[in-house]
Amino acid sequence: MPTFTHRVFNFNAGPAMLPTEVMEEAKSEFLNYKGTGMSVMEMSHRGNVFQNILDESLHDLRELLGLPSRYAVVYFPGGATLQFSAIPFNYLKAGDSADFALTGVWAKKAFEEAKKFYPNVKSIFNGADSKYMELPTITDEIVNEGAKYVYITSNNTIYGTRYKTFPKLKKAPLFADMTSELLSRKLPIEDFSVIFAGAQKNIGPSGLTLVIYDKEKLPALDHPIPNLMNFALMEKNGSLYNTPPTYSIYIAGLVFKYLKSKGGLAVMEATNERKAKKLYDTIDASNLFYAPVPEDFRSAMNVVFRSHNESLDSKFLSLAEEQGFAGLKGYRDMGGFRASIYNAMPEEGVDSLISFIKEFERTHG
Amino acid sequence: MPTFTHRVFNFNAGPAMLPTEVMEEAKSEFLNYKGTGMSVMEMSHRGNVFQNILDESLHDLRELLGLPSRYAVVYFPGGATLQFSAIPFNYLKAGDSADFALTGVWAKKAFEEAKKFYPNVKSIFNGADSKYMELPTITDEIVNEGAKYVYITSNNTIYGTRYKTFPKLKKAPLFADMTSELLSRKLPIEDFSVIFAGAQKNIGPSGLTLVIYDKEKLPALDHPIPNLMNFALMEKNGSLYNTPPTYSIYIAGLVFKYLKSKGGLAVMEATNERKAKKLYDTIDASNLFYAPVPEDFRSAMNVVFRSHNESLDSKFLSLAEEQGFAGLKGYRDMGGFRASIYNAMPEEGVDSLISFIKEFERTHG
Repeated sequence: MPTFTHRVFNFNAGPAMLPTEVMEEAKSEFLNYKGTGMSVMEMSHRGNVFQNILDESLHDLRELLGLPSRYAVVYFPGGATLQFSAIPFNYLKAGDSADFALTGVWAKKAFEEAKKFYPNVKSIFNGADSKYMELPTITDEIVNEGAKYVYITSNNTIYGTRYKTFPKLKKAPLFADMTSELLSRKLPIEDFSVIFAGAQKNIGPSGLTLVIYDKEKLPALDHPIPNLMNFALMEKNGSLYNTPPTYSIYIAGLVFKYLKSKGGLAVMEATNERKAKKLYDTIDASNLFYAPVPEDFRSAMNVVFRSHNESLDSKFLSLAEEQGFAGLKGYRDMGGFRASIYNAMPEEGVDSLISFIKEFERTHG
Repeated sequence: MPTFTHRVFNFNAGPAMLPTEVMEEAKSEFLNYKGTGMSVMEMSHRGNVFQNILDESLHDLRELLGLPSRYAVVYFPGGATLQFSAIPFNYLKAGDSADFALTGVWAKKAFEEAKKFYPNVKSIFNGADSKYMELPTITDEIVNEGAKYVYITSNNTIYGTRYKTFPKLKKAPLFADMTSELLSRKLPIEDFSVIFAGAQKNIGPSGLTLVIYDKEKLPALDHPIPNLMNFALMEKNGSLYNTPPTYSIYIAGLVFKYLKSKGGLAVMEATNERKAKKLYDTIDASNLFYAPVPEDFRSAMNVVFRSHNESLDSKFLSLAEEQGFAGLKGYRDMGGFRASIYNAMPEEGVDSLISFIKEFERTHG
């Protein structure tokens, strides 16, 4: 494995690259946060210093998203996977149903987890028919009667697909797993009732999850819910029902400040669209590589591509690694390549990757 | 608030002080781990580099604890609170019962959480009778017929009590929340079937939990269990069922190596007993301060003490803060003082605190 004295362009799908400025700042105060004589990692979650870190992070996040006050924001531990269980517990009672659009691995996992406890949940779209290369158009017409919510995965990290525009529903509230794209684009927040995102793409370290929900739409159910999954309990306690992942919240807070300093989500979206477009354009113009996802459904975060000559795949990956392009291997059973270009991937990284792809094609194509 | 250019003696109960050597090492590779060109925080949890970090950490932990192979070790997200729900789900079926020794806040929370889902669980000891200053002697005689397990909190962070010796039971397997003392003393591992510990005391950053369980005693139940609470599923996937808190696992691994380099748990125990004894001796010899916990039940991790003259409490705390003794305030509703002296608190820190206590008594007593 090559070794580097500098930071590489890290195309990992998540945990993923974080802004170097954020990492430098965190490093500078790693052993002594602002004269407290201790790391944020070593600080009481009940003390003023951490409370300020937490409050500021939520304030900045609300500002970035333009969140109306009726939306709660809660930090949960455990990753998106915990929400796959928590959401049905908080929103469904025995016999209830909800509609799921099965656009990829994570949507299926969320659906199966809900089905274990609420057997009436339904699939309203099966991506397997298009090998997960296409997304549905979800309108009130396809929402089932009585569905308590409609569940989507807004960006599919593995297949590299995303909803270019989001469903607008009247028949049922819209819930979205936005793990791999929250904070990368502007959102019509009021079209959603629940949004959640594991932190390890655009937010911070793994093991932290952001949950945003419309408090007016949270039902009061009378069945028991495990405490760490209970939206109302976690919200009432200001994300401090138990000891939260404090250091991860701190890093997330630094990321939010970084995003604000860059101009917020409108700027991030424009930059991300530009980064993605030039990379897809390069792949579309190539004779060696191709992008399997139809243009309408292409993710701006996870650019999936393949080679017409698979015998060159391992050569491509090892050369890329050597030259400091890390994490380009496609998802486990998918093969091919995937360049995850989250907020923290500088445009320079995409430009360098494009040059590398062209040079590889010139010499091996 | 005073500001420091050096690290203070941090007596916080958790998140708590970590060994400065560990923090220095983590800082040195914060932006570039061993030439990979990225932080551990930015690394794929499916890659070889992180897999090695994970494997080494588990290897070192097993060695420290002398774990027989029939015990699984799994990293869970979410803190001990998630285990309060997970353990009943994994070990009880509808109608089953288990016995809880209610020795403090955390034991009560675990009991109440279990009771929400399994109303037959029973209390076998109520610490309220002694204001939580005493612990029970648990023998087979007091274990209820049919109890699937006996649950204890081995060290009570808030009240500063601990089991000097552990119950030895034949009638039911013993489960222990060891959040505030795992790795601080040697353990008769084979007397336990489940041990778990939130990381934020002696292990690493908050948001990570270690679960150790005897695989032969895990029942095969046929009710659904949320995936992130499912012991067998998490174990089968080697703590990688979903994206775990990777950076926290890395820090835990550094802590395990640090403990090995210091000579392991026997050395830690001897040092911890010495640190605690000299602090209790100072308090016992004082005319101003006293330790409310009877000698037999005194924790070596959380030394709780109070003043006979409460009007001096805030003076004591502010002077301590100024002089670099952080986190000495007692638990929220408890008042008084608490010095948490986990593994990472150097003996020098305890010696300095003793001098400070004596000097305060000389000038204010």
